[in-house]
Amino acid sequence: MEQEALYQLSRSLQKWVLEAAAETRKKMTQPLEIMTKSSRNDLVTNVDCANQAFFAEQIKAEYPMAQLVGEEGANVGAGDWHNGLTFFVDPIDGTMNFVKQQENFAIMIGVYEDGQALFGIIYDVMADQLFWGGPQLGIFRNEQALEQAADQPLSEGLICVNTRMLVTNERQLQQVFVQSSGVRIYGSAGITFAQLLRGNAQAYISKLAPWDIAAGRVLAETLGFQILNFDGQPISMVAKEGMIIAPKQAMQEIIAIMAHSKTAE
Amino acid sequence: MEQEALYQLSRSLQKWVLEAAAETRKKMTQPLEIMTKSSRNDLVTNVDCANQAFFAEQIKAEYPMAQLVGEEGANVGAGDWHNGLTFFVDPIDGTMNFVKQQENFAIMIGVYEDGQALFGIIYDVMADQLFWGGPQLGIFRNEQALEQAADQPLSEGLICVNTRMLVTNERQLQQVFVQSSGVRIYGSAGITFAQLLRGNAQAYISKLAPWDIAAGRVLAETLGFQILNFDGQPISMVAKEGMIIAPKQAMQEIIAIMAHSKTAE
Repeated sequence: MEQEALYQLSRSLQKWVLEAAAETRKKMTQPLEIMTKSSRNDLVTNVDCANQAFFAEQIKAEYPMAQLVGEEGANVGAGDWHNGLTFFVDPIDGTMNFVKQQENFAIMIGVYEDGQALFGIIYDVMADQLFWGGPQLGIFRNEQALEQAADQPLSEGLICVNTRMLVTNERQLQQVFVQSSGVRIYGSAGITFAQLLRGNAQAYISKLAPWDIAAGRVLAETLGFQILNFDGQPISMVAKEGMIIAPKQAMQEIIAIMAHSKTAE
Repeated sequence: MEQEALYQLSRSLQKWVLEAAAETRKKMTQPLEIMTKSSRNDLVTNVDCANQAFFAEQIKAEYPMAQLVGEEGANVGAGDWHNGLTFFVDPIDGTMNFVKQQENFAIMIGVYEDGQALFGIIYDVMADQLFWGGPQLGIFRNEQALEQAADQPLSEGLICVNTRMLVTNERQLQQVFVQSSGVRIYGSAGITFAQLLRGNAQAYISKLAPWDIAAGRVLAETLGFQILNFDGQPISMVAKEGMIIAPKQAMQEIIAIMAHSKTAE
């Protein structure tokens, strides 16, 4: 994408996300309609659905040829995002936090062109923290440019993990915990990425759907984080899959621990 | 304590905590001196020590007969807090977060008179959120009065836990997780109490020292939370001990799960 078109994309996405967030805050003053999906703790609300519909409409009007991959509604599903422009939308990430805490949730959109990372945006709605940018733009927290990730040993940083993987010791995740400075669990991929991007945690190990990872991937890779699956291979971003987000040194240590595991994924 | 003396205590403690926090923020612009205590992930810094010394000085000047129980320095140790006035001080709670995140840590002081809860204060320094009050004053977040805790089933709320207890399944904590809405781990007792007091989480299960629990106990019990050890008995607050903080219904369910455990504490 040409530079001027990329600036336009950046401006449009920031505008849409802030509009959706304003609407979200307004809807939070009313009782939410809460439904379950795959399990009693996999929630979706009327706000998730309304936000996704809003983004779908905006994207279709401005980028009619683009593909949309979203968590909710009619547009679910990942096609071939290696051709053309693809928008991955998570209209409310951390829906359990949204319902139970009324904070610590995010709106996320990741944009890829012919399989290349173009632009990512993660908005921590209640903290009013906007993380945005891409490889050609740099990465910002609101208007402040963010620094490259510190490349340090696993022992020197905090790790964020999936609770169920920790409890079942999948891929020896408990050993990764023991080697680190400690575990934090925030309950939202977007909020966790915000911690990584700010340097508050050094690694994130979880199972993430395409819309959970797409925006964070653009932002984190631009700041020097690597993203690999549990076998040390590139992620596919077409279905929910296990993945590690970490700078180089910690990544090597985590992969080495996971490689010794006999536990099936 | 007479009402007027209690108001004076409340004013003094708020003033001291805000002064210590201002000094803390100033010291954070300089490199920290970081030392380890019981293990490589049990940290103390020059700021922990300076804050404790500051509180010790203020308390001694204004309450010369009072006992001080603090995490750092010469005043460590719990005497008999059932006689007279006792100040439990945690000068920086969540020191790992303080070091690695430069946020998500708290300053906490709990005051007891003849073994009765009198006043508690928890300050989330970087978020500028002051939780304070007591049974005779009510509980406030900054100037806003907080509501009584929602008394609901375990399944309806998030729980905050100690990572090591979760990993080792001590007292069947993994079963408590499965019965809840999910786990959150914040890395600081003070920050976790802030989540409980705001209604963002319903229960907290961990092993806490007297200075970790004293302030939160005053605030949480006043809002209807119960605090019991893993056998359903009152806590002693003289040494680090396992405890559950939860409203009545969730407490009963958690105790029932833990009672079936064969795992030693």
